Amino acid sequence: MPTRVAFLVYPDMTQLDFTAPAQLLAFGGCTIETAWKSREPIATDSGFAVVPSTTIDACREADVVCIPGGIGCHDVMDDDELLCWVRRVARTASHVTSVCTGSLILGAAGLLDGYRATSHWRFRDYIRLFGAVPTHERVVFDRNRITGGGVTAGLDFGLALLEALQGRVPAELAQLGAEYDPHPPLHAGSPEEAGPALVARLEKGSAKQFAARVARIEATAARLKAHPLTC
Amino acid sequence: MPTRVAFLVYPDMTQLDFTAPAQLLAFGGCTIETAWKSREPIATDSGFAVVPSTTIDACREADVVCIPGGIGCHDVMDDDELLCWVRRVARTASHVTSVCTGSLILGAAGLLDGYRATSHWRFRDYIRLFGAVPTHERVVFDRNRITGGGVTAGLDFGLALLEALQGRVPAELAQLGAEYDPHPPLHAGSPEEAGPALVARLEKGSAKQFAARVARIEATAARLKAHPLTC
Repeated sequence: MPTRVAFLVYPDMTQLDFTAPAQLLAFGGCTIETAWKSREPIATDSGFAVVPSTTIDACREADVVCIPGGIGCHDVMDDDELLCWVRRVARTASHVTSVCTGSLILGAAGLLDGYRATSHWRFRDYIRLFGAVPTHERVVFDRNRITGGGVTAGLDFGLALLEALQGRVPAELAQLGAEYDPHPPLHAGSPEEAGPALVARLEKGSAKQFAARVARIEATAARLKAHPLTC
Repeated sequence: MPTRVAFLVYPDMTQLDFTAPAQLLAFGGCTIETAWKSREPIATDSGFAVVPSTTIDACREADVVCIPGGIGCHDVMDDDELLCWVRRVARTASHVTSVCTGSLILGAAGLLDGYRATSHWRFRDYIRLFGAVPTHERVVFDRNRITGGGVTAGLDFGLALLEALQGRVPAELAQLGAEYDPHPPLHAGSPEEAGPALVARLEKGSAKQFAARVARIEATAARLKAHPLTC
């Protein structure tokens, strides 16, 4: 039986968080499921919509659950039905995983409490509000939790996950098929590499949105502390 | 006006060929259009479908045209309506581009004749059948043609294209936002890196499919030589 990987998909997700690992896992022969409340198309952040292959009602189990990130993560974090779905699938999955700010959703579902984990560099410290231990690595393994950093870290995450699932050679074959021998033509892919001036420019350009997102994360953490999930 | 980037999307495309550059270009503020014959969902190779944002009838011009690759490329290469759409949009686009075996489609449309270009490593030499000069680089610029290598090369391609469109700083901001500081956990991303044993294993595992694909490419090249496009 091929490994079943269930991705939660949701409006305004950062599509590459999900499409990058999905590609490597599909090359590795995994069955990819994409679950949402309905099978209506979901608008991503990149001008196109994806059609969920299943629903959270129909998909109750998977070998791997993976949660992508994106601006839409905040609505997911405030939706107990979705958080309970994540918890439910996680209960029997061999690996419970996320890319980018998907780790905030895992955190809100109570699945990172006491675990080392990562997230997009701007949001990494905020997973602490859900009991996680922010860890500055591109892919973080802690027991059966695997979390990837921001967006494109989904490729390194997907390859590491495929190796964990199938072993080294199948993962290498997927890497070769996907020609994953990156040579970025620019060198600004992390705060350290980009330097403080560029980081300041990015932060200034999105300061208002970022503050609103942090406020939502803090409100969600407070809400879940006052009213823990009962599922 | 934001830059309009039109991707051709089609059944059985390798979705990351398109989703990877689309993410970086969307971060850079480009408008992403995905065009197909209809707006019905299109099955990708990774277990999910995407919904085209427009049709080839409705989308007659764009600033950039980009053609992804995948097994479905052969049907596109034998569809004169689609090839003529690519030619038409290319006529006024500032950049005519592809990722992976999308360069075979550009080639079939007559758009790489006399141009240096690349493709997925297994198919790179076959673009010669359409007059292109196969070039062993991850991203190849020749005049206004930009072609990327296999699958994940779409990230390096997307970043290079964004720099060409908007300049260095906006491209660096997109790279930082996408945390594109790759650290592959394995080292088999090119034939050179993977070594002959792994290459042989991949080739053996897909020998029959590969031979069928080569036969189709050769047949398409012969057909187009005997009956050139009239558009």
